[in-house]
Amino acid sequence: MNISERKLTLLCDFYELTMARGYFNSSIKNKIAYFDVFFRRVPDGGGYAIAVGLESVIEYIKSLKFEDDDIEYLRSKGIFDEEFLTYLKDFRFTGDIWAVPEGTVVFPNEPIMIVRAPLIEAQFVETFILLSINHQSLIATKASRIVRSANGRVVSEFGARRAHGADASIYGARAAYIGGVSSTSCTLADKMFGVPAGGTMAHSWIQMFDTEYEAFSTYCKLYPKSPTLLVDTYDVLKSGVQNAIKAFKENLTEEEQKSCAIRIDSGDLTYLSKKARKMLDQAGLTCCKIVASNALDEYLIRDLLLQGAPLDVFGVGERLITSKSEPVFGGVYKLSAIEDENGNITPKIKVSENAVKITTPDFKRLYRFYSKESGKAEADLLTIYDEVIDENEPYELFDPNHVWKTKTMQNYTLKELLVPIFKNGELVYESPSVKEIKENCQKELLSMWDEVLRFENPHNYYVDLSEKLWQEKNSLLKSVKSKK
Amino acid sequence: MNISERKLTLLCDFYELTMARGYFNSSIKNKIAYFDVFFRRVPDGGGYAIAVGLESVIEYIKSLKFEDDDIEYLRSKGIFDEEFLTYLKDFRFTGDIWAVPEGTVVFPNEPIMIVRAPLIEAQFVETFILLSINHQSLIATKASRIVRSANGRVVSEFGARRAHGADASIYGARAAYIGGVSSTSCTLADKMFGVPAGGTMAHSWIQMFDTEYEAFSTYCKLYPKSPTLLVDTYDVLKSGVQNAIKAFKENLTEEEQKSCAIRIDSGDLTYLSKKARKMLDQAGLTCCKIVASNALDEYLIRDLLLQGAPLDVFGVGERLITSKSEPVFGGVYKLSAIEDENGNITPKIKVSENAVKITTPDFKRLYRFYSKESGKAEADLLTIYDEVIDENEPYELFDPNHVWKTKTMQNYTLKELLVPIFKNGELVYESPSVKEIKENCQKELLSMWDEVLRFENPHNYYVDLSEKLWQEKNSLLKSVKSKK
Repeated sequence: MNISERKLTLLCDFYELTMARGYFNSSIKNKIAYFDVFFRRVPDGGGYAIAVGLESVIEYIKSLKFEDDDIEYLRSKGIFDEEFLTYLKDFRFTGDIWAVPEGTVVFPNEPIMIVRAPLIEAQFVETFILLSINHQSLIATKASRIVRSANGRVVSEFGARRAHGADASIYGARAAYIGGVSSTSCTLADKMFGVPAGGTMAHSWIQMFDTEYEAFSTYCKLYPKSPTLLVDTYDVLKSGVQNAIKAFKENLTEEEQKSCAIRIDSGDLTYLSKKARKMLDQAGLTCCKIVASNALDEYLIRDLLLQGAPLDVFGVGERLITSKSEPVFGGVYKLSAIEDENGNITPKIKVSENAVKITTPDFKRLYRFYSKESGKAEADLLTIYDEVIDENEPYELFDPNHVWKTKTMQNYTLKELLVPIFKNGELVYESPSVKEIKENCQKELLSMWDEVLRFENPHNYYVDLSEKLWQEKNSLLKSVKSKK
Repeated sequence: MNISERKLTLLCDFYELTMARGYFNSSIKNKIAYFDVFFRRVPDGGGYAIAVGLESVIEYIKSLKFEDDDIEYLRSKGIFDEEFLTYLKDFRFTGDIWAVPEGTVVFPNEPIMIVRAPLIEAQFVETFILLSINHQSLIATKASRIVRSANGRVVSEFGARRAHGADASIYGARAAYIGGVSSTSCTLADKMFGVPAGGTMAHSWIQMFDTEYEAFSTYCKLYPKSPTLLVDTYDVLKSGVQNAIKAFKENLTEEEQKSCAIRIDSGDLTYLSKKARKMLDQAGLTCCKIVASNALDEYLIRDLLLQGAPLDVFGVGERLITSKSEPVFGGVYKLSAIEDENGNITPKIKVSENAVKITTPDFKRLYRFYSKESGKAEADLLTIYDEVIDENEPYELFDPNHVWKTKTMQNYTLKELLVPIFKNGELVYESPSVKEIKENCQKELLSMWDEVLRFENPHNYYVDLSEKLWQEKNSLLKSVKSKK
């Protein structure tokens, strides 16, 4: 069942409602607010993130509606007046949303979504937007790291049982697939989104039979096409691999033997896989793949491969589906501008003692510069919405924190990253299939310099401000300071 | 919308289905399997966990059913025969489940749930059971730690926007409440489960008005009963607290002023709260509470209190709702016995090179010994299901790993922790309200020695095996070893 059928309107922080009623009773009710969704740093010290979660947001916005029992519940809180509750009955989202398509490679401090709507609506959708984008971008980003560490080998997502609830499993599998894994163990993610689901046997399968060989042999007879036998129930080398070889030889045709595999789920994966590889090769099963699982992540996979472990496939569970090493993606939702009834936009800034927490004001556009020569992405640029860039002219970029650092872009193409999703409350975006999103994501990653993709101490990709936006930000900062 | 309405039957690891079809076509199809749900260690090095997630499991089991489109999807995979697919059409859970009630304090290596059912059914429900119990126990356990660190002060759950999807927010809020927090920001958790939801304003509220004072004053007029004003939008001490004092004084009655509060969401919380406290007291607002938020967890709260920060309420977000410091609860689902058509039970063991991964075999009961003198829980005991303990006789416990360590229980009461939930597929358990579950949990925590509850280097609570069970485990281990 997808998000739009689930009546999740009340999945909001309660303060969205107290503020909503406050705005409803105030003179600023009819103003239009602009909010940016952005994050300040990439989890795990990485250099890039993969934006995912838009599809859930679309489903949520489409189905936003206070049901009678929602109203009844709110009335029971005793702080909302009847006029406001009546207003909620017809509440729907009537504004505009721009977002980067799912699977886009994104960087800190650039808006990955902009919401423009009457104040109450724009504020209300904050919680769901953040929880969708934070969760799904977190998992897609982690998946991308893990897949990169596997260096061309197959990575499969196995984490359902350790996910933070049903959605974390289902949408986590979808995000991991977009981020680069080849398949999932989560059957429902296959049915709902076409993420290929796979899996063969648990230890209990082997325990249910009188002997390990009988368990293996029964399985091979049933599933002669690419059976993967779990070989660590008793003893990997003394029992598991030997019985697997016997079962493959006795039950599979020579053709079928070419797509068989064993899985090792415990013990020293390097030692065991090297020994197992030798045994398989000696038995003529040189095509038999070796799958490794057991609390893997990008660091362990890198180490295993560095040690020469002959592994072909990695099953990655809890450390992917929870992004264990850093399970929080810190996307925030910040007011950037207010528009009055006459269409005049007033930029807004949020200051902070902590310089990294200062926001970039105004209704903005986000561009990516690609070098025509290398095809690589060179920098992203934020401009005020009404600025025009002539692609045929050179464009001087500068570092917003160290303005003497400049770079003149020449011979480039420009891509606008934020695309219209909702216009006046109507969905104007046609979502690609999950497979297409994954392909776009992998294509985009190819457009990034390796230095940006490195998973430790990556190069900081440039996210610059236009001269005009930089000036505006600075003058706003000064005016806020002078107000104190 | 609760779990039972969501058609989550296919939220299973794909291997549950490949195994199911395998069992369906084999001679062992009609055997009864026993599976134990247990975990091997407490996250964060803690001494105890809080079991939560049973209610979701009940909802799932009740609604287990392959819909036509599920069957259609499975058919499309091309590996399931029609006979099996026809069988799935009428598939439902017909077995038995025992579990500890939600909110029970539990320890490593004891079954917190036992599933007894025809093999295919017992295996099939693994994934959903684990993901519910792992997620919700994780959050309840973390909440319990954080609430203990606050030492009697109020803790509120604020994490929706950083949760791993909708369920992680909703069921996480429920679990956190059971584990001890007083309220949540998640409105839907209030509507669904009666977890009190609260919240007042975001920074954007303050930014929307011309001045901070106007924002505060507007809020106080609207919500004169216990307004909490967010004071760090511009400058906590130079602006926020001063404007809050003015707003409280000018808009609230003296009675109302007694339940006002300010919230500090950034900066040095100790320094700022001490200064703010002084300013509030000097203004006569000695009852005004100070709420702190911003990436708090048990370690930070302990430090803040150690430094004498005069904080009354903690709003805890991402580090609770993701259990950031350790976001995985490692519950597993292991075969413990098989029963044949004549009711004969054969215990099963899973061996491992890694001693802690060896399972405890057989269909078991779980008891907790309480000292009649102190009222405290002294140890848990696992027995084979048919053992009888006479509470009027002394009972000798021994450490299963160091058998010379013994302790004779005298003057005790015994509580059986696993209670029947499903019998022959029928729900036989009446779930308490979430509020009752929370109260039971807090009562149970009081029955634990402080040494067990300590959040670093806790005393290891005893989970012992009966003599009979210990003997059986050892002889099974030997027989498996001799088979090699």
